[in-house]
Order: sequence, then structure tokens, then C-alpha cells
Amino acid sequence: MSPTSIAVDVMGGDDAPESILDGVKLALDEYKVRLVLAGPEELIRESFSSYEATTGSYEIRPASEHIRMDENPLQGVRKKKDSSLVQAANSVKEGQTRVLISAGNTGAVMACTKIKWGVRENVDRPAIATHLPNREGSYSILIDSGANVDCTARQLLQFAMMGVVFSETVTGIENPSVGLLNVGTEVKKGNELVQEAYELFEQGPINFHGNVEGSDVLGGTTDVIVCDGFVGNVALKLSEGVARTIFEFMKEQIDQSVRNKIGGWMLKPAFKQLKKIIDPAEYGGAPLLGLNEGCIICHGSSSPKAIKNAVRQAMLFIERDCNSEIGNRMNSLNESVTIDE
Amino acid sequence: MSPTSIAVDVMGGDDAPESILDGVKLALDEYKVRLVLAGPEELIRESFSSYEATTGSYEIRPASEHIRMDENPLQGVRKKKDSSLVQAANSVKEGQTRVLISAGNTGAVMACTKIKWGVRENVDRPAIATHLPNREGSYSILIDSGANVDCTARQLLQFAMMGVVFSETVTGIENPSVGLLNVGTEVKKGNELVQEAYELFEQGPINFHGNVEGSDVLGGTTDVIVCDGFVGNVALKLSEGVARTIFEFMKEQIDQSVRNKIGGWMLKPAFKQLKKIIDPAEYGGAPLLGLNEGCIICHGSSSPKAIKNAVRQAMLFIERDCNSEIGNRMNSLNESVTIDE
Repeated sequence: MSPTSIAVDVMGGDDAPESILDGVKLALDEYKVRLVLAGPEELIRESFSSYEATTGSYEIRPASEHIRMDENPLQGVRKKKDSSLVQAANSVKEGQTRVLISAGNTGAVMACTKIKWGVRENVDRPAIATHLPNREGSYSILIDSGANVDCTARQLLQFAMMGVVFSETVTGIENPSVGLLNVGTEVKKGNELVQEAYELFEQGPINFHGNVEGSDVLGGTTDVIVCDGFVGNVALKLSEGVARTIFEFMKEQIDQSVRNKIGGWMLKPAFKQLKKIIDPAEYGGAPLLGLNEGCIICHGSSSPKAIKNAVRQAMLFIERDCNSEIGNRMNSLNESVTIDE
Repeated sequence: MSPTSIAVDVMGGDDAPESILDGVKLALDEYKVRLVLAGPEELIRESFSSYEATTGSYEIRPASEHIRMDENPLQGVRKKKDSSLVQAANSVKEGQTRVLISAGNTGAVMACTKIKWGVRENVDRPAIATHLPNREGSYSILIDSGANVDCTARQLLQFAMMGVVFSETVTGIENPSVGLLNVGTEVKKGNELVQEAYELFEQGPINFHGNVEGSDVLGGTTDVIVCDGFVGNVALKLSEGVARTIFEFMKEQIDQSVRNKIGGWMLKPAFKQLKKIIDPAEYGGAPLLGLNEGCIICHGSSSPKAIKNAVRQAMLFIERDCNSEIGNRMNSLNESVTIDE
């Protein structure tokens, strides 16, 4: 087994398989990686008929079915044993690859990886860690950004620890600071969940900064921001929505007069730079942490560039052995803090 | 009693009393309103020594103390009986005025108004309703945006109804649509709270659109967006943070080259227009709904313009009798839907 073997769910995503296969080609042109493409053999062969990989290599893992974006996750995974997602997960389970990338039905990806690989020892629930650009010119990790809508304080502490490991190993930040997302920075703020979590975080073997507010999320106040998956999902989609609204407004304004058109043209590089910073495609995907194997979940509407960047992220995840380190730290977390449910 | 008598907490706010008094003057220049200014008599007299109100009128309600922004809310209200906030609330209670405006310690404003005026019949908890600009060029109401961090489904339905009345009477929207803020638009999405709320919302006498996501908040998908105060507070501060981050980035970019400077100068009117739309000062304040009297809570850092706009909002609140209508609807809500706790 090559150390940089990654499974790709070719049929997962709003624009699959085209967008996924185009992203695979971009990655193969750039990275020394071996991609196992789970999907319909004929279709993939045809797409690759006039393509020759320059840097990476690939092989096809045939899969005759696929789980639709709107399908019931658990039913899809159980019934469609020859789906591209299940085959990609099997590829990891069998040791053919080490990380799975999918832009498909998020619920199905979570169910499938949990069933096939199992959750790590001393982890209650896997969580999604998302890179967010911040005002300090760096990236913060928002965890959980959508996997668990009802959480306990103990789970939040586990998310914090997994976020720290990811920030250290993949983002490359030393001793990352952790903030607990709350309605104010004072100690006694918040609902029952975060008040209880605050006490646990103080005991935990993490660099705990204290509470942070919504305005700190992009402010770079801390390297890791912890919240339950309900709040995280709303926060993430809201951030994207605000940015999109502002961009659309400026676009409309620029179209409205000659003066604005010229101004817009002159500022084009600046707008482009801004877009690059806030574009989710830059990071490609968000890892689902806490499983026995590695999984990168991509946005349903992932562009080829996003898929390419997800491959890069998966490579870093493997090279820096993020998953083993999560295992080590979760064991020591379990020993150092008594967190009864 | 004049129908447009409003009490202003002169000492509440990060930049009080200057910012508040300047805002009061702007309002008195523009609106036919009678403002009762609760605060230190001498200080207010001095500030108004060279000022003559053209349109509105004012009187001073002496208050010798004030509750600091970082003070324990309940203790502040209990101990400082001659504070500007308590005096302003008394003014409403005694019928001297009909609405209270404060940019002070939000916890203290909530505690004080609840103690002095009481909560309306058939309302479990007052909630804060915030105007948010949306892509449709209108405003949506986000309720609760921070008063209650732990909520029940029954409370969320009450928030929905209060938001609807506010949207109808003050924003002027007919039969406002209601969205439940969730992690996805499908029926069975979300945590326990919102799943339970969904069922209640379907039974309620409201124009229920269904679940909405974070990206819908500024999308104008619904006129009213309902969530608990924890999620609402995070969402509100995050929106402001994203907008601020984008503005600061563009400002830095514009300063970086002559080309960008010229482009920025040409687009100045567009940026100004955008700022006007997303500026919280445009709406001035957010009403705390569900009390026996009217209360407008302003941002701690309110500018004079924000205070002026809060006065305008308070006038609309009185003229359109928003509070009586909330009373009527909450009674009929209580009769029409069985919502056991």
C-alpha cells in the first residue's frame, strides 16, 4: 500500500461525476498521489480516454450504484452495497486507501464511515472540522460544524481536542488556542450546555482561551472554535450567506453606472483576492474527525478546484498522521479529565 | 399624556451620555416627539444650554446614578433605584411615557423592565426582535436575538407570533412568512428543540414557511426567522463580524496601490450604499417584545444616528399600537394551540 492512496467517491455531489472527475485530473496533474476512483467503470474510462496522468496515478474501483443527494442516508448505505460511496469506504477498510473523499450526501457519508470503520476509542461522536479564514490572515478551525445537532459538554471537550490536533498537524499551528462559542465573553454566560462545557474546558489539557462570540469567529481570536453542530452549521451557512450577499450587492452596484464599472474594473484584483480568501473551495473539504479512518467531506456543490484541494488536504492528513495523533490525545484526554455523562 | 412620549436612558451605552444626548437632539430636530430624558439634571441642562429643539420637545427626569455596562444586571437594578435606567422605566410605568429606549447594560434593561412592568399574559418570556437587511431589499425580523439562551418549543412559537405582529405593524409587511432556523430545510432536520417546534409551528395560526438555513437569514426567504436566543446572538454577531471583516479587507486592499485607490474612490458611493444597508444604526434598536410596556434596546456602541432611529422606531411602535396587538394575538394563540410544557 502506498502511503498516499486516497479513495474518491466519483458519484457524490451536485455536479458529479463531471466536477469530481475534473478535480481528480487536476490533482493527478499536480500531486504524487494514487487515487482510487469508486464509480461506474465505463463512464470513468471514457472520461479518462484522452487523458494521461502526469504526476499521480489512478485506478478504478467499479461501483454500479450511487446514493442520491436527497436519499435517506441510512437506507441508502444499507441497500446500495455497490454504490460509489460504499465502495470507496470499503477501499479504505480493506487498506487499499487511507482516506475517503466525498462530496455526496453528507448524512450518508457519516453513516457509511461510522458503520464501516467504527468510531475511535474514547470518542463519543465524530465531528466535522471546518477551516475558516480569519482577519489575522490565518485559518481557524470551527468544530463541530454540523455532524451533531444535540451535544453534551463532554462531547464538546472531545471536539476541542480533535480540533486542536487537526490545527496542529494539518494547519501547522503550534499549541492552538481554543475558544468556546458563546453569547458573551464573561465566564457565567450562555446556555446550560456551554456553561457546563466551560468548566470541563478549564480542566482539560488544552490551551483554553475562554468564551468567544460570533464576532470572534472570523476575528482570529482563537485557532479553534468549539460549538455544537447545530450552532456550527447555522454559523457556517450564515457566513457564506453574508459574504455572498455583499458580493452580489457590489456586483449589482458595479453594473449600474459607467463610473462604478470603471471602479469595479480597477478593484478587480482586490475583489479576486478577497474571493480567494473567503472561497470554501480553497480548502476543499472538511474532515470528519474521530473515526478509525480518515474522511474528508466536501461541499455538495464542490468545483473541480475544491476536489483538487480536498486531495491535497487528504495527503496532509495522511503524511502528518493526524488520525493516530487524535487517537493518542483522546486516550490521554480520557485519562486526565473525569467527564461523566 | 401625549401619545408620542418616549423615555430615554441618558446614561446607558459605551459612549453615554454624549452619544445619547447628540442622538436625542437629532431626533428633536426631526420628529414631533416628547422625550423624557432620565439622567443627571445638571449635565443634561448643560448639554442643552445652547440648543433649542425645533420640532420635538423634552423634559428632564432627574436620576443621580447609573448602572455600568459590566455591572451585575440584577444587583444594579435592585441597588440603584435612582439610576437613569430605573427612572426611565418608572417613567413608563407611571404613564409619563410609553416606550423606553436604552443602549445600556442589556441584562439590566431586561431585568429592570421585567421587574417594573411585568411580562404580558400568555407570554412565557420576552424576546429581542432584530431587523436584518435581506437580499430582497427588505428587512427580515430575527427573533430571539439574545434574550433567552435556553428555550422551549412553546417559547419559540410565542416568539414567532410576536415577530409576526412586529413585522406587520412596524415593518409594514402583510401576512409575514415565518421560517424556523435549522440545519437543513427538510422536515425532520435539527435538534430536539426545533423538531418539536416544527410540529407546533405547523399547528399555529402563523404563515409558516418551514425550516430555513443560515444562508436564508439574509436571503429574504421569510419575513420572520425564529431561533433560540443563543443561536440568534451568535448569528447576529457573526453577521456583523463577516461584514466588518470584508470591509476591513477591502479598505486595506484599496490603500495598497494607486490603481486600487482610484478604484476605491470611484466605488465610494457603492460602498457607502452597502454600508448604509448593513449598518445596524439604520434601524437604531431592537424591541424587547412580550412585556406590558414597550422597550427598545440599542447596541452599546450606538451612534447618535442610531439613537435617533431608535426614537423613530419607538414612535412607530406606539402609533401602530404594536404592544396591544401582541396582547391580542398571544391570547388567541393561547386559545388555538395546546402547547403543554
